[in-house]
Amino acid sequence: MAKTLEFFFDYMSPTSFLGWAVIPGVIERTGAELKIRPMFLGGVMKATGNQPPGMVAAKGKYMQQDMARCCARHGIKIYSNPHFPLMNTRILTGATLRLDDDPEQQKKLVEAGFKYVWGLPEGGINTGDEGEFKKAFGAEGFDADRLWALGTDPETKAMLRANTEEAVARGTFGAPTFFVGDQMFFGHDRLDYAEEALLS
Amino acid sequence: MAKTLEFFFDYMSPTSFLGWAVIPGVIERTGAELKIRPMFLGGVMKATGNQPPGMVAAKGKYMQQDMARCCARHGIKIYSNPHFPLMNTRILTGATLRLDDDPEQQKKLVEAGFKYVWGLPEGGINTGDEGEFKKAFGAEGFDADRLWALGTDPETKAMLRANTEEAVARGTFGAPTFFVGDQMFFGHDRLDYAEEALLS
Repeated sequence: MAKTLEFFFDYMSPTSFLGWAVIPGVIERTGAELKIRPMFLGGVMKATGNQPPGMVAAKGKYMQQDMARCCARHGIKIYSNPHFPLMNTRILTGATLRLDDDPEQQKKLVEAGFKYVWGLPEGGINTGDEGEFKKAFGAEGFDADRLWALGTDPETKAMLRANTEEAVARGTFGAPTFFVGDQMFFGHDRLDYAEEALLS
Repeated sequence: MAKTLEFFFDYMSPTSFLGWAVIPGVIERTGAELKIRPMFLGGVMKATGNQPPGMVAAKGKYMQQDMARCCARHGIKIYSNPHFPLMNTRILTGATLRLDDDPEQQKKLVEAGFKYVWGLPEGGINTGDEGEFKKAFGAEGFDADRLWALGTDPETKAMLRANTEEAVARGTFGAPTFFVGDQMFFGHDRLDYAEEALLS
């Protein structure tokens, strides 16, 4: 029976964008099932006492070089988002969670979501702005009104909080975090270890 | 002309031990010259406002699993040091710096140093204890009295501080940190990128 790779992430995390670029090869080579698990990165940080790497200036500066190198290796390019860190990705994250019953649509939304947050040469959009949200995801062929409604549904917030609490309870302290059963892997650069776990 | 790989580290850093295990293959494949650059990790943390990963409990717990996985892949096993983080590695670090004029002896001391701090199944020693220090490095064939004298020489402290300040000035915020010219690489898991830089 194929194993499952769980992907806990938040669109506001540039390293999650990088993780997303590495996942397809892992899935292709292992035949694993991908389970998309949106969470609130801010909630994870708060619950664990962790802080974004950029809080240490030297680390933040290095991270930019490191991201550029890793993205180049994995065939993507990341661009700044002028709204970071205030681009309010919660609604997009919530809408992604609510597409849980349609994995293909969900995957398509993650792809489009990362594109509009980190993948635009002209700079990412503010996905928390209703007009920008609907314009972007409408252009990608989604029913943008429905997506916005799903993302802003109060029930969605509770569901996202549950995902976040589960992630923290299982050991998560940042993003992206992957699970193969109870084995946890942090960062795109541990997906090769996750791949071994999926094949073992 | 062969390029140089600079290795900034402190024995108190378990991830530096892991970095040390990955270096030989890089040197073998690139023909690069290895430049051993001991530093005070505590000084780097203080200067940059960085903190050890274990300050976030969930991160510290994960780091143990991650270290075990990465060590296994690179053919080493790491053991706890009962004196951590108070094992006072400054004298060993200093003695290592002072062997700068004899690269082969210096390399041999780094190998032995990491062994006595992190590589003993019965648990690492306190390298700041004169008796333990001399017993360990005498057994490895060093002139242990001379090493201890070098490590405790007041001039050594100033030289180590200079290395540490240089590391920070060049962008270092933790250990191990590698440089290929002005390109910085943090962590054993970026040595493959350093290798590309050495070969380019």
